[in-house]
Amino acid sequence: MTGGAEARDDAIFKRSSCPITNGLNIFGDKWTLLVIRDLMLGKCRYADFISSPENIASNILADRLKRLEAAGLVSRQAYQQKPVRYEYVLTEKGNDLKPILEAISRWGRRHCPGTDVFRPVDRFKLR
Amino acid sequence: MTGGAEARDDAIFKRSSCPITNGLNIFGDKWTLLVIRDLMLGKCRYADFISSPENIASNILADRLKRLEAAGLVSRQAYQQKPVRYEYVLTEKGNDLKPILEAISRWGRRHCPGTDVFRPVDRFKLR
Repeated sequence: MTGGAEARDDAIFKRSSCPITNGLNIFGDKWTLLVIRDLMLGKCRYADFISSPENIASNILADRLKRLEAAGLVSRQAYQQKPVRYEYVLTEKGNDLKPILEAISRWGRRHCPGTDVFRPVDRFKLR
Repeated sequence: MTGGAEARDDAIFKRSSCPITNGLNIFGDKWTLLVIRDLMLGKCRYADFISSPENIASNILADRLKRLEAAGLVSRQAYQQKPVRYEYVLTEKGNDLKPILEAISRWGRRHCPGTDVFRPVDRFKLR
């Protein structure tokens, strides 16, 4: 943890060359991971995310989608003009988070009694 | 997402019966997961965690250790009296987070160029 290689890397990285740290700097908060869960379930519009039982606040949702897009984990496409509205989908980089979400889900099912996985949504039934 | 089963569960759970949500309510922030990483690497004392390159603040560290203990993910044992000082170790429930940390590490190594995993520490060399 205190070797020469890390001292060098830390000059390049802001704080730490640890892949866990650098990953968590992008997606290491609860709301970000819940938006990613929803995207993996097939949700793609603001109203879809807002409807989830965790009741994400609108400003937090907007902030997290913006950060996810800036980090290249999510891309957006307008589905309506005047006012312009967007749909969001995971990029390949975002989809690569799937094993993390699956591992969290397994832990939760094992250690939080009574939890049950959410089923994927049919986005055509959502409209 | 809006079925009857979830409406029932949401009366029992504070907000959501999703295992991901319930897991993240316990460990879903960056500093918590970095303390867990350090515990998995073999660090066990305050000074060990503080020495990590992410420079965790002392009050955040104290808060996260307290929460982890309350959630049953970490147990502590005094190794010194007057003043009393503690060592921390992961419980079985805490050790079960390993696949999550491994998945985050794999994502980071793939998508954050130049990152490199930290090696386990030899706690006897730390003293």
